[in-house]
Amino acid sequence: MARRSYNSRVKVSEVGEFGLIRLLTAEFGIDYPPAAGAWPRPGLLVDVGDDAVVTERQSAAMVWTTDTMVAGVHFLPDRTPWEATGWKALAVNVSDIAAMGARPHLALVTLCLPADFEVDDAVDLYRGLHACAFEYDVVLGGGDIVRAPVFSVTVALSGLAFTTDLGVPAALTRGAARPGDLVAVSGSPGESAAGLTLLQRENGASTGGDALPGAVSRKLIDSHERPRARVSLGRAALEAGVRCGMDVSDGLLQDLGHISRASGVTIRVDAGAVPLSPELATAFPQEALRLALTGGEDYELVLIGSRVALDRVIAASETPVAIIGEVQAGEAAVRVEGAGVAFDSGPGGWDHFR
Amino acid sequence: MARRSYNSRVKVSEVGEFGLIRLLTAEFGIDYPPAAGAWPRPGLLVDVGDDAVVTERQSAAMVWTTDTMVAGVHFLPDRTPWEATGWKALAVNVSDIAAMGARPHLALVTLCLPADFEVDDAVDLYRGLHACAFEYDVVLGGGDIVRAPVFSVTVALSGLAFTTDLGVPAALTRGAARPGDLVAVSGSPGESAAGLTLLQRENGASTGGDALPGAVSRKLIDSHERPRARVSLGRAALEAGVRCGMDVSDGLLQDLGHISRASGVTIRVDAGAVPLSPELATAFPQEALRLALTGGEDYELVLIGSRVALDRVIAASETPVAIIGEVQAGEAAVRVEGAGVAFDSGPGGWDHFR
Repeated sequence: MARRSYNSRVKVSEVGEFGLIRLLTAEFGIDYPPAAGAWPRPGLLVDVGDDAVVTERQSAAMVWTTDTMVAGVHFLPDRTPWEATGWKALAVNVSDIAAMGARPHLALVTLCLPADFEVDDAVDLYRGLHACAFEYDVVLGGGDIVRAPVFSVTVALSGLAFTTDLGVPAALTRGAARPGDLVAVSGSPGESAAGLTLLQRENGASTGGDALPGAVSRKLIDSHERPRARVSLGRAALEAGVRCGMDVSDGLLQDLGHISRASGVTIRVDAGAVPLSPELATAFPQEALRLALTGGEDYELVLIGSRVALDRVIAASETPVAIIGEVQAGEAAVRVEGAGVAFDSGPGGWDHFR
Repeated sequence: MARRSYNSRVKVSEVGEFGLIRLLTAEFGIDYPPAAGAWPRPGLLVDVGDDAVVTERQSAAMVWTTDTMVAGVHFLPDRTPWEATGWKALAVNVSDIAAMGARPHLALVTLCLPADFEVDDAVDLYRGLHACAFEYDVVLGGGDIVRAPVFSVTVALSGLAFTTDLGVPAALTRGAARPGDLVAVSGSPGESAAGLTLLQRENGASTGGDALPGAVSRKLIDSHERPRARVSLGRAALEAGVRCGMDVSDGLLQDLGHISRASGVTIRVDAGAVPLSPELATAFPQEALRLALTGGEDYELVLIGSRVALDRVIAASETPVAIIGEVQAGEAAVRVEGAGVAFDSGPGGWDHFR
């Protein structure tokens, strides 16, 4: 029916998630990911390609994001309590709002349910959603429930952007890293991937491995199943003068790669400075650093700004924040040095279709 | 894990969509559907149970809705152009915004795609989304693309509420019908269900039937595949003083039933006054009225208000608007009389899980 400028009959698995987004946005004249310094479309303060889009709305600015979890793709339905899936479905969206330095506002929830899905499980799922909504002051604004061959839950979440004392909206974006800035990360990246590895082992995918203290595996699995969103930290960063940030969902190095491309800078990471939690180091002594650098779904915040601004954030934050690197002029790249390792761009992270 | 107040191991197919929504909302102290005269939760001007929720936001009010289409459940992927699915996925959400008398603002689009989904089809889908966004002045604000065993597309859409000249937000709600009001409907309900019937026949589910003129079947199938949203009409109704309305998605009688319960009134429909398009009457001479009364997915607007207000709407509207009944004091019920038929509440419409 329509004319095509690329080879027909290509499957989405062949181009990957980012390739597909690039194709779809290119059809409509949108650069994805946005080039460093690119202008957003009219009506948007921040365009697609960041953690969330930002719209201006009379005296206020709003932030918008959506994220989906599909059974068997994004979680193991037979190993994960439905209440945890409910929590996480909302928390990952709250994290995107936090990554813009905004406050979450209203969520719409779409459930795709097989006909034989049990009502008890739907109620447990909603309890998790509700607990997360309570924790982060989110209004559950309804949604849609439909029949489908496989379970999925989609949350669309709006937020209220941070505004300065002068009433000017501000957001943490991926394109605001400048040479000379320092790079910080909150919490303990890698715990979520470690927790997933433990869940998969329990699931029979084990290659052996010794028994872990229960508290260690519980902590790691909890990091995977019930991630916290860093709402207060994102706002504190904007208040302190930080303007570059994102949440770690694809893995620390891959997400720093997004920032390096959006900002047009080189990011140097000191591997020895990456925080490794005792639980992560206990459970995966050989793999802790790799998991921290490339594991996904941490939902910690990367914050990039001046030393003065980051020192203010560190002093004010209840969540531990560690400086792990710096921004340098140069090509868009991520370099990891120290702790006996040396990577250069590209490794780790994951792509949903490959 | 959690205590249950109802029988365990109940499947969602046993309680149905509305039953499940009632259970899930009851868990959190929300009445669904809301009783006549019920107050919304704090922070909401209109709570769940209407076409969309409405939030107040400093000097403005916003409207929020989401709707999903699953391949094989909500459309026939082998009979429907992907561009039409893209159009409809957004249009049905625009219709919910229109049904509140609001203007659509920003959409987030979630695609669940099997790994072997073809990129061409994804681009066609996006062309349909884009055409609809252009038609109704919607900002496509990004979204999420994930792998899933079955295709689905979820759109979450925000809108800007109508405000009166005094700056007070107003919306068309289901609970605002009052005895003495008249009941009107736009366009030609039943065409969408007729178009679906024709598509299913082409699909091999035919029971025979004569060949139809191509223009007739094209019109009916187009009504099913590419519904129009009545944005201008919804706003015009509010401007004219109408305060009760909704869009016809489950079928005219079932949706009038929602209004009768939300408003605590009896709705009397004059079957002879229900508009039947020439195409509908040609294709289904015996079934036209039944399709118009019970067919789903029309996305026309039901408007309920005083004769003066509705006369103003009819005079100002480009879309045909027909008065089909009246509101009476009495129990929540829908009565259909005339044209040789007599129904009383309950028939028609559909439930996704049954």
